[in-house]
Amino acid sequence: MGSSSLIRVPLVRNISQLPEDNYGRDGFSHVTVAGSALHGMKEVEVWLQTLTPGSHTPIHRHSCEEVFVVLKGSGTLFLASSSHEKYPGKPQEFPIFANSTFHIPVNDAHQVWNTNEHEDLQFLAIISRPPVKVFTYEDWFMPHIAAKLKFPYYWDEQCLQQPVKDEL
Amino acid sequence: MGSSSLIRVPLVRNISQLPEDNYGRDGFSHVTVAGSALHGMKEVEVWLQTLTPGSHTPIHRHSCEEVFVVLKGSGTLFLASSSHEKYPGKPQEFPIFANSTFHIPVNDAHQVWNTNEHEDLQFLAIISRPPVKVFTYEDWFMPHIAAKLKFPYYWDEQCLQQPVKDEL
Ligand SMILES: [Zn+2]
Ligand SMILES: [Zn+2]
Repeated sequence: MGSSSLIRVPLVRNISQLPEDNYGRDGFSHVTVAGSALHGMKEVEVWLQTLTPGSHTPIHRHSCEEVFVVLKGSGTLFLASSSHEKYPGKPQEFPIFANSTFHIPVNDAHQVWNTNEHEDLQFLAIISRPPVKVFTYEDWFMPHIAAKLKFPYYWDEQCLQQPVKDEL
Repeated sequence: MGSSSLIRVPLVRNISQLPEDNYGRDGFSHVTVAGSALHGMKEVEVWLQTLTPGSHTPIHRHSCEEVFVVLKGSGTLFLASSSHEKYPGKPQEFPIFANSTFHIPVNDAHQVWNTNEHEDLQFLAIISRPPVKVFTYEDWFMPHIAAKLKFPYYWDEQCLQQPVKDEL
């Protein structure tokens, strides 16, 4: 099959047929819409994520830019603009809703909750400079330097750690 | 009002209340969802664009990455993967549809048409390294070196050319 070690993917993809996984997290669903490991993106990556009522992302930070576009549902963004302090501290709360957009300042700790008990919260998350390096916090008062690096991140693990072998 | 020359925008924005313009192009609508000039983005920019039946983007190229997420309608992507040739040449045609995604290889000439006569085509376009530098072609056989640079691009013009003045 030649020397290419990339999986061939069609240029136009049906998002609802792309692989979806919860990566062991209850109430969570992630689809890599356009990714560095899967699709060869170098500068931007697009994810489709869904949170069931009551579920949430970890408290985390990353040094890339991130833009959210909320497609369905509503919830709360928690954001601590304190990357120059010792720890995130009490975050500000912002209501988010279908057809809203927001972006996360680089290195600010943040968390998205589905606080609507009746509906899933679904959004596109767009990041720069993939693959993402995520630092997670157990709580808002954990020092920045104690936040735990997870790299490659869950949805990048398989492709980054197990390069596809050429057929012989 | 102090020394900031940035327009203050709320962190969470209702996309349907953001400024929309056709920039003189019939059947076209553009909204900057998250932008460098408007919102201080440095690494990614997100646009919401709508094409009425029969309308299309110009044939163009740019050296940034671009990902499309189609929200509504259907149409055709024309893509000429010939940035190393003298001119784009006859493009390949790809059907695109609601809930599909595709990305444009850097520097490949491309054009999106709404070829569905019954419905608007609406998509998010995500680019890296804003603000975008767009080279437009009059046709697919115009040499790459004759393509016309438009910078700042239409939706970046006002903010990049007319910095907001401080109130005195
Ligand atoms: Zn994040
Ligand atoms: Zn383009």
